[in-house]
Amino acid sequence: MSNTTEESLSDNFSSNSKVYSFDVLQNYATLELEKEAYRIGSKKPSTLYEPIQYALSMGGKHIRPVFLLMACNMFKGNIKQSVPAAIAIEIFHNFTLVHDDMMDHADIRRNKPTVVKKFGENIALLSGDSISILSYEYLFRQKMSDSSGILELFTESALRVCEGQQYDLDYEEKEVSLPQYLEMIRLKTAELIACSLSIGARLANATAEDIKHTYDFGINFGQAFQLQDDLMDVYADQDIFGKKTGKDIISNKKTYLLIKAMELANPEQKEKLTYWIKKKDFDETNKIKAVKQIYNDLNIKEITRETIKKYYQKAIREMESINISSERKKELISFTGKMIKRKK
Amino acid sequence: MSNTTEESLSDNFSSNSKVYSFDVLQNYATLELEKEAYRIGSKKPSTLYEPIQYALSMGGKHIRPVFLLMACNMFKGNIKQSVPAAIAIEIFHNFTLVHDDMMDHADIRRNKPTVVKKFGENIALLSGDSISILSYEYLFRQKMSDSSGILELFTESALRVCEGQQYDLDYEEKEVSLPQYLEMIRLKTAELIACSLSIGARLANATAEDIKHTYDFGINFGQAFQLQDDLMDVYADQDIFGKKTGKDIISNKKTYLLIKAMELANPEQKEKLTYWIKKKDFDETNKIKAVKQIYNDLNIKEITRETIKKYYQKAIREMESINISSERKKELISFTGKMIKRKK
Repeated sequence: MSNTTEESLSDNFSSNSKVYSFDVLQNYATLELEKEAYRIGSKKPSTLYEPIQYALSMGGKHIRPVFLLMACNMFKGNIKQSVPAAIAIEIFHNFTLVHDDMMDHADIRRNKPTVVKKFGENIALLSGDSISILSYEYLFRQKMSDSSGILELFTESALRVCEGQQYDLDYEEKEVSLPQYLEMIRLKTAELIACSLSIGARLANATAEDIKHTYDFGINFGQAFQLQDDLMDVYADQDIFGKKTGKDIISNKKTYLLIKAMELANPEQKEKLTYWIKKKDFDETNKIKAVKQIYNDLNIKEITRETIKKYYQKAIREMESINISSERKKELISFTGKMIKRKK
Repeated sequence: MSNTTEESLSDNFSSNSKVYSFDVLQNYATLELEKEAYRIGSKKPSTLYEPIQYALSMGGKHIRPVFLLMACNMFKGNIKQSVPAAIAIEIFHNFTLVHDDMMDHADIRRNKPTVVKKFGENIALLSGDSISILSYEYLFRQKMSDSSGILELFTESALRVCEGQQYDLDYEEKEVSLPQYLEMIRLKTAELIACSLSIGARLANATAEDIKHTYDFGINFGQAFQLQDDLMDVYADQDIFGKKTGKDIISNKKTYLLIKAMELANPEQKEKLTYWIKKKDFDETNKIKAVKQIYNDLNIKEITRETIKKYYQKAIREMESINISSERKKELISFTGKMIKRKK
């Protein structure tokens, strides 16, 4: 057992003076999530609730619930009492994954068969629906002040995630500009991260101004986080990454890298890119190699890293504006700093 | 313009002494729903919100929101102030229709192409998800007391509807007993009707005991309502019904009629029923005629009517236990009485 696990088991997370690390809160959140997944999995009909338990037990970093708890901790809130909202956020995120995998006809997630692959379309549809409703069940268990605005924020963010997913679908079929792409990832990815952080701050009764800075920190970090995701698909070290690189290139996914490359390409490079995008039958290794060569020639890796840095610096400026001691901010800063340089 | 429409336009629905009819409240609810559907349809991205507007504008009787308003009116609550919850209920019901049609691969609903038929699977999935979230947006607009329990009830009922749908899917593949079938329709159909009535009573600050009777009235009426639906598929006068009869027979849907017939059939009748259920290629008219003949021989029509009556009488006993004047109950009693004898 690691030190952090021991620490998380011996603590009751009610202290509001202590500053907890991501790892410690991740262990805590994971244990609480596993308990709830098990409880949900025992409900009837099992044909509905076992797939839900499966979806909720697929692993992952649980960054959204941990961010909620970290923001709560940053403002000296009670972490233990904020667990229902943290679970609600993670459950909602899992609902989006189950239905996204249906739309993408994805077979594998986190090295396991997706819900749709394992249980079929109807079960994926209905268990996803139920997971979405369950997220509200947990949200309503959360003690909060009437004026917190948490219920409205959660619902607004949930709708924005759907809007982002819709733009993502729309952009499969048509030209996308960089601003449109950045707005899409703001809705689809950054919004729920910002919502998690904002709920944590609200539960800790932070001031309206600090809640706003925390949310904007989340939006800017969330965009940097998604761009790092785009970057890793092409430039990650496959051994560390743990999965195949180049998947976005093979599927012609309109990532920041591709859109930027199309913008910067000279006529010859544009022709080459278009050739590979339109080609129906191709050798995957060849396509990845050819597209990556164009990216290299156009400095796409460095340009993307610069954009990530720009968003992250904006995030940090928001964090600096929060009116609390820097001692209490350091865990969120240090963890998010690692995330935008992550290799897997 | 009909009298009821004129009445509904000239009234502001804030009186708590007046007793409104179903028709008047139906006009009112329909106007409010149309306004909201239009507002939602103008949101961006239109690829997401236009299908939602389409789904919300497909018509129907709107019995759930009207029941909510009628229950509220019965207990002298403020109808006008209860509109957001009524809209939430109808929006949630539409979410279930959009996703149910996906599961059933249904092309037509209320004489129009279904969302999945018109917009495709991905849009039906994502717009359905968004409709479900939108129902909470309206629910949170509803003014209610902290102790009303409405949020928890809504979510519990929503989950039960999903559970009912799951049982319905499960029963396509296996034997079903009558108690299992009745429990399934309780979850899938009666629960949301009872929830609507209960929310109306809660918004009008009815006593806990009266809220319970109102809910149980809804459960028992809801089951009678679904059984009437089963009955009409076989025994409706096609000219009044407005759609083809015998659809459940063609698709081997396990309705009350079929399960009861299998229970009562002698070996020869059972063999005949099984023959038609298993037959892959058949003339639809012949199959309907043959199965209906067995139902007739077994008195299934009369037996089903008796069961409907039994549930409705239970509902009426619950209504009688409600501690208010019979004058205030008469609209709900008269309308539900018509519903369980409806011909379309």
